[in-house]
Amino acid sequence: MRIGIYGYGNLGKGVELATRMHEDMELVGIFTRRDPGTVHPLTDVPVYGADALSRFKGEIDCLIVCGGSATDLPVLTPMLAKDFNLIDSFDTHKNIPTHFEKVDAAAKEGGTLALISAGWDPGLFSLARLYAASILPSGKDYTFWGRGVSQGHSDAIRRIPGVVDARQYTVPIESALASVRAGENPELTTGEKHKRECYVVIAEGADPEKIATEIKTMPNYFADYETEVHFISLEELKAKHSGMPHGGSVIRGGATGLDGEHRHTIEFSLKLDSNPEFTASVLVAYARAIVRMRAEGKVGAVSVFDIPPAMLSPLSREEMLAKML
Amino acid sequence: MRIGIYGYGNLGKGVELATRMHEDMELVGIFTRRDPGTVHPLTDVPVYGADALSRFKGEIDCLIVCGGSATDLPVLTPMLAKDFNLIDSFDTHKNIPTHFEKVDAAAKEGGTLALISAGWDPGLFSLARLYAASILPSGKDYTFWGRGVSQGHSDAIRRIPGVVDARQYTVPIESALASVRAGENPELTTGEKHKRECYVVIAEGADPEKIATEIKTMPNYFADYETEVHFISLEELKAKHSGMPHGGSVIRGGATGLDGEHRHTIEFSLKLDSNPEFTASVLVAYARAIVRMRAEGKVGAVSVFDIPPAMLSPLSREEMLAKML
Repeated sequence: MRIGIYGYGNLGKGVELATRMHEDMELVGIFTRRDPGTVHPLTDVPVYGADALSRFKGEIDCLIVCGGSATDLPVLTPMLAKDFNLIDSFDTHKNIPTHFEKVDAAAKEGGTLALISAGWDPGLFSLARLYAASILPSGKDYTFWGRGVSQGHSDAIRRIPGVVDARQYTVPIESALASVRAGENPELTTGEKHKRECYVVIAEGADPEKIATEIKTMPNYFADYETEVHFISLEELKAKHSGMPHGGSVIRGGATGLDGEHRHTIEFSLKLDSNPEFTASVLVAYARAIVRMRAEGKVGAVSVFDIPPAMLSPLSREEMLAKML
Repeated sequence: MRIGIYGYGNLGKGVELATRMHEDMELVGIFTRRDPGTVHPLTDVPVYGADALSRFKGEIDCLIVCGGSATDLPVLTPMLAKDFNLIDSFDTHKNIPTHFEKVDAAAKEGGTLALISAGWDPGLFSLARLYAASILPSGKDYTFWGRGVSQGHSDAIRRIPGVVDARQYTVPIESALASVRAGENPELTTGEKHKRECYVVIAEGADPEKIATEIKTMPNYFADYETEVHFISLEELKAKHSGMPHGGSVIRGGATGLDGEHRHTIEFSLKLDSNPEFTASVLVAYARAIVRMRAEGKVGAVSVFDIPPAMLSPLSREEMLAKML
């Protein structure tokens, strides 16, 4: 199947690398809104300007749209769905229903199939929530994120005057995680589930105490959390904090029995060295499903909830039954 | 949707209780090959002899077949699939392809839809293996079982002369689990992943040392494992070891990047107070999917791999997108 990448940031690079892992996939090209001459792929793959994409209609089986959820995807995905089967990783949870409707209308108009909000959250974590809630209707869900870099929180620190650079890790609080894993179904706010670790580089002469206070009292981002601020050098930040690790856990505690006397815990966890590369790996696996389901006649928008798991696998039905079931 | 239970052991009881958790389900009856007068349900539900089942054709939307995989299900499931949509929990992994084919032929002949091998392994663990392998093609899978009661191993101990009763727990070895979770992808035999804890009641005058040796050297069951044997009283066995807890983890460690430099771990874990009640909860959630997919025209045999996750949920598409994705 022929894959195209639209947008070449960290996620696009991850898609470029992930397609190499699948023998049944071929990367047709990278499409960029920048000057294609300034884009240098990691592997031997052609780069085109975004306006060249229309020439590839019918030549790309699935386009993977790698853009930001704030402003890019709400416009890009519906536009591109008119001409291409595609996948995006739209992750602004509260706007998913609206995004779904816009993409659904565009895909139905174009006779294409579009998977929105793939990745790990939304994506694999959503699947874990849905399976667990369906199986244990009497229960309670918890999502923990981290230990991982939050781009939004890192950016918020960088906007403080006197801050040169910063990296923020969201870290699950061990005691909260242990209580949930033990099936105690505690009541927990987001702030009681996570703490925030900040590594901050400041300008010469800037006041660390003032900056630490400004971080710790920042509404929405930090005020409701246990927040640690560590001042380090730019060299240390680059050496120790330039990766993009992430992960987390979705846990459901539920009960069965005549009187709810038996407790069960279902947990799905991820520990990721590279958030964008793993997210890209999910998108690429789903590309196989989208191409197959379109070939079966399906059009419109879909979510990961609509995709039979078998559609993701390169194995035949016989191999799946014999080796995976 | 109208549910029927065929076979009333621990699993059948679990199904009886689980259907009460779903507002859109109604339990039509329990069908037993025993004398129905000797079967006493936990709740207010009619009990019929197995031969009465033919009268319920068209009155049951999904039959949940609760029998053993060794001799019951290979015969029962193909027979019943001629007249009913159904679900079984056939778990003899190596015979799944043959079982699938027989059930598929029967279901196609009868115009019914039959889900085989649902539960947690096979079932949810199979899904975890399939999703993880599709997303991280370059990686390695591990399945750990326990801490949980193994019926087969408990039975094997009970067959030793001088043994009154016994309970065997399969227990993951912590150091092996830690190595896998750390993404070290070690080479491990089943015996290096699990140890076996045996609680044994012996007859007066029986030789504990001889029995312990007999257990520890039993081929296939114990010889390849670190095995602990604890002799206890019948009272203690009943008080402390009458539950049916189980669980386990499916873990895949995989790599991405230009040169596999980023490691990722995907883990799906269960911790269950009651193995049969949890298994039953999985079967009942899938009953919803089977009824819906049959209504869409699907016939034949399917596995959990063929079922879109959305089919399991009582939520509407709008609710799913807004709350679960």
